[in-house]
Amino acid sequence: MAIAPFESSDSNRHAQPLKFARQAVFDEPLLLERGGRLPQISVAYETYGRLNAEKTNAVLICHALSGDSHVARHQADDDPGWWDIVVGPARPIDTDRYFVICPNVLGGCRGTTGPNSLNPQSGRPYGADFPVITVGDIVAVQRRLVDHLGIDRLLAVVGGSLGGHMVLHWATRHPDRLAGAVPIATSACLTSQALAFDVVGRNAILRDPDFQAGQYYGTGRAPLVGLAIARMLGHITYLSREGMMEKFDAQRFKPRLVRSEFETKFSVGSYLAHQGDRFGERFDANSYLALSMAMDLFDLGYTRERLAAAIRAARCRWLLMSFTSDWLFLPFQSQEIVDALVAAGQPVSYCNIQSRCGHDAFLLPDDLPVYGELIRAFLANLDGRPIYTLPAANPADAETAALSPTSIFHSRHRLDYDKIVELIPPGASVLDLGCGTGRLLARLAARGHKRLVGIEWNEQSVVHGLRRGLDVVQADLNQGLAAFQDGQFDIVVLSQTLQTVTDVERLIGEMLRIGARSIVSFPNMAYRDHRRRLKQGRAPQIGAEEGHRWYNTPNVRFLSLADFEEFCAEKGIAIHQIVALDTHAGCRVDGEPNLNANVVIAVMSK
Amino acid sequence: MAIAPFESSDSNRHAQPLKFARQAVFDEPLLLERGGRLPQISVAYETYGRLNAEKTNAVLICHALSGDSHVARHQADDDPGWWDIVVGPARPIDTDRYFVICPNVLGGCRGTTGPNSLNPQSGRPYGADFPVITVGDIVAVQRRLVDHLGIDRLLAVVGGSLGGHMVLHWATRHPDRLAGAVPIATSACLTSQALAFDVVGRNAILRDPDFQAGQYYGTGRAPLVGLAIARMLGHITYLSREGMMEKFDAQRFKPRLVRSEFETKFSVGSYLAHQGDRFGERFDANSYLALSMAMDLFDLGYTRERLAAAIRAARCRWLLMSFTSDWLFLPFQSQEIVDALVAAGQPVSYCNIQSRCGHDAFLLPDDLPVYGELIRAFLANLDGRPIYTLPAANPADAETAALSPTSIFHSRHRLDYDKIVELIPPGASVLDLGCGTGRLLARLAARGHKRLVGIEWNEQSVVHGLRRGLDVVQADLNQGLAAFQDGQFDIVVLSQTLQTVTDVERLIGEMLRIGARSIVSFPNMAYRDHRRRLKQGRAPQIGAEEGHRWYNTPNVRFLSLADFEEFCAEKGIAIHQIVALDTHAGCRVDGEPNLNANVVIAVMSK
Repeated sequence: MAIAPFESSDSNRHAQPLKFARQAVFDEPLLLERGGRLPQISVAYETYGRLNAEKTNAVLICHALSGDSHVARHQADDDPGWWDIVVGPARPIDTDRYFVICPNVLGGCRGTTGPNSLNPQSGRPYGADFPVITVGDIVAVQRRLVDHLGIDRLLAVVGGSLGGHMVLHWATRHPDRLAGAVPIATSACLTSQALAFDVVGRNAILRDPDFQAGQYYGTGRAPLVGLAIARMLGHITYLSREGMMEKFDAQRFKPRLVRSEFETKFSVGSYLAHQGDRFGERFDANSYLALSMAMDLFDLGYTRERLAAAIRAARCRWLLMSFTSDWLFLPFQSQEIVDALVAAGQPVSYCNIQSRCGHDAFLLPDDLPVYGELIRAFLANLDGRPIYTLPAANPADAETAALSPTSIFHSRHRLDYDKIVELIPPGASVLDLGCGTGRLLARLAARGHKRLVGIEWNEQSVVHGLRRGLDVVQADLNQGLAAFQDGQFDIVVLSQTLQTVTDVERLIGEMLRIGARSIVSFPNMAYRDHRRRLKQGRAPQIGAEEGHRWYNTPNVRFLSLADFEEFCAEKGIAIHQIVALDTHAGCRVDGEPNLNANVVIAVMSK
Repeated sequence: MAIAPFESSDSNRHAQPLKFARQAVFDEPLLLERGGRLPQISVAYETYGRLNAEKTNAVLICHALSGDSHVARHQADDDPGWWDIVVGPARPIDTDRYFVICPNVLGGCRGTTGPNSLNPQSGRPYGADFPVITVGDIVAVQRRLVDHLGIDRLLAVVGGSLGGHMVLHWATRHPDRLAGAVPIATSACLTSQALAFDVVGRNAILRDPDFQAGQYYGTGRAPLVGLAIARMLGHITYLSREGMMEKFDAQRFKPRLVRSEFETKFSVGSYLAHQGDRFGERFDANSYLALSMAMDLFDLGYTRERLAAAIRAARCRWLLMSFTSDWLFLPFQSQEIVDALVAAGQPVSYCNIQSRCGHDAFLLPDDLPVYGELIRAFLANLDGRPIYTLPAANPADAETAALSPTSIFHSRHRLDYDKIVELIPPGASVLDLGCGTGRLLARLAARGHKRLVGIEWNEQSVVHGLRRGLDVVQADLNQGLAAFQDGQFDIVVLSQTLQTVTDVERLIGEMLRIGARSIVSFPNMAYRDHRRRLKQGRAPQIGAEEGHRWYNTPNVRFLSLADFEEFCAEKGIAIHQIVALDTHAGCRVDGEPNLNANVVIAVMSK
């Protein structure tokens, strides 16, 4: 191993030195997963911030297909980095706090060994002789760099798209080398649709007469038409349909004037022509082939069983994010990985971020307040210093109350929370369904519980949950909880949420399956005030405190304690304890709970 | 005009005679919408069935981009037609009943004048000299053919995708020439995303060195690589993502053996390679360019105002269909057209068919039971002979009851229907929200009401509604009714549906806006049985007759008559009449309706 100053490894125009990139050269041959070897590897990389003395603050960033080592500016007058909005001082990946490493990937064309590098054995660029590489090979090279920097264990590995594949490989194949994994807008493997787009793009390059079987370097010709076609296609898949409508629809027949040999008749056409033409100026077609093939070959497991097996090896904490309008790497694909992690009992947070920006969302500022803040909170948690450090055990905590935009009773003391906390044995593992900002879980964490998981639908609440140091998975309770294993938790809590769920039967069935004990709290329709109101000819107003009326309440299920007891009897559900509360009076109810309690807490099991 | 036996109009291999095609030749020059002219037009077409003496049973079928005149077999041993499942004896477009005409389109390559036809002025194929054509030009040629066949007014014009654009042009620009329009899986104009795919496909052809500026005929070379790339791309957009997963995911890395110069590494890749290679054997690249450009230029109006203006000219009855998994021509695009038709008060039926087959769905058998039966019912209605002709005015009608899978009280006499019918003045125009299979509307139709429209969510109910001769638009009442104009109907009915709708306030606001009078019926929560039940500590069971319990009822809103009256008072809604019913006793209630009625009917206005 030797460190060389950065130099272009061949004469072709793509291997331009990036101003701040350093280069490490590894002379030990790299054996490749699909056979073959590379005799020598150069890695171009950039770093930001300072490695601490314990070497525990390093964050590795993996770039996507057409990215490079220049993830962010090093100084104000530097060229823009591709993730300036995320990486830098006080940014979500805060370079005042973390030591950030971003290498150009194996197979790329920006200083790391790739098809345009000089093949030491032939003395000319590899071209078509560059072997088939995989995400595993790319990670193997990243590992050499991390070793070279003297880092045993990365704080986190972060990457989107193809970079997310690298994160998944790191976490599952090198579990000891990282504390946290952040795969963004990625998948265990491509959909056949995404794969098909890659195939068409590669065909456009491979059948371009200027491709010359890949040995076009130095011929004065390159498959720029094919590469441009591939890039145009890529661009369509990176944008959302809505995003394209907003960008191009109004001026559909009024294209910008663009000088191109491609069609420029429509506004979207002139955009694509411009993008296609420009791409060839900075990217090498052989790298495009090599990296898109690595992506297409990536396979963390495309059956549920194989995915589960791969995931079981991981030992880090996880944060996954997808974007609702991403149709190239779809939310369901991230959810499959989350499901496997959940099933394996691994600590995972997940958010499917409401976005109009498609696959590119993680590179754009629009959704930064969500994905950036999730990354910031997650890294802080890995670091053992959650963003919210107020004494969460204090139930009257005004700060936490203010954070709870969706919680019921948010401005008041939660008597029902107190009682639920009392019902949970010390040290129990707890799954909180509809956890809001994580107020109940934070109290349990302060009491020393180790295994706590929250499920929450509201995006901002998920952010707050992470800021409290919790693991929160964004999910719709109506969609079921199939990923969780039988008996996976000591306690499953459903607090003041039952009445808002359409398919009560399924949800309760799931709770009983997943938890040794389940705790449900709900408003009691047979409470005396409600009876009185109906007697007067009016429908009971449950949730009237929050200003809800019959025509706009979030509640869609109405039941009494007696109804619930009958339901449990019919379904063979054991009720172990009922805690009846009058939250108006602020006390427990002793006699006639179905008349005197407005809120009921039930402890059940199968 | 002369009729010639079919002959190939040039020497290139695409203009193959189709066995059963006839050819009409029109010597009058065709002036084109975008300038230029074609001195002579040949049209290859096929017909099926017999034109009746009144010439009122002709159905024109417009094919999509790569189709031709051979819509169906003429006899058992004939080559398969592209829509055999829809067109033929006893098929939805029944050739025992209708005279079907299917011409190859202008710009095509199967016998109708196109780029591969001989240019009489140069004596060689048009090639790049073929002028830019539009959907309007294509329809102009179809009109010449229809004139030539002596048909003044077509019963219907039917087509999907680009063929749907032709239908839209017929209906809005030649309103006197058709009684019914069936645009399927189409749009007022392409999304920028769909347009972008076309642009990339054309670029692949235009920049193929074998394209030779379009003059490749007779050179022994043709832009087959570019055409194949365009076709591969097209194929991806015609299939749904789910469909591709089902077809290719399991065998992702095990492609079928296909001999191709394209990449065949993945199963989806070998499929695309095969499709790409084959397409060049039957289709001409210049036709692909001409027809995809005609599609991209199609613009019925991409602003709401322009679309509305175009639609106002139409005077036919409409059936539109889209497919949920179609991401090339999206359901919202059909809905925009439906909305414009609704706003213009034109008779329209619409169904967004639940499908896994993507854009290709209308060519495949999977969803034929829905789209085929809708076409069948619609044509029968145009013909004045609805499929269901039972005396719908008979309220005890067992047949119609059996058709109502989703209606409430379906097996019983509907006292509330009787009362609602009584409340509707003779001859009033009526919009029925949640019309089910159209039982109420059919009774009104039998009473002579002319302007009746149903809104229904259930797909099968929509089919039954059309079979009754009605116009039914599939829509979700929760999504609002924005397309309807203020005061567009005399009466808007919401019968036993209010309690299942989440946003009651908006829906009632919409009803009051659209109807001079609104009629709402709903269950009364303060009915004596319900009061008694809560007094006994149990939540009232509304809908218990249908077996619904508190945890699985479709009802999500619970109100008493008094609640409703208060709501109306607060919102400034005038209640003109209350009809209180005890449907258990089968009678009207006179005293204390909020106590004695289980169902309430209210007539209201703003």
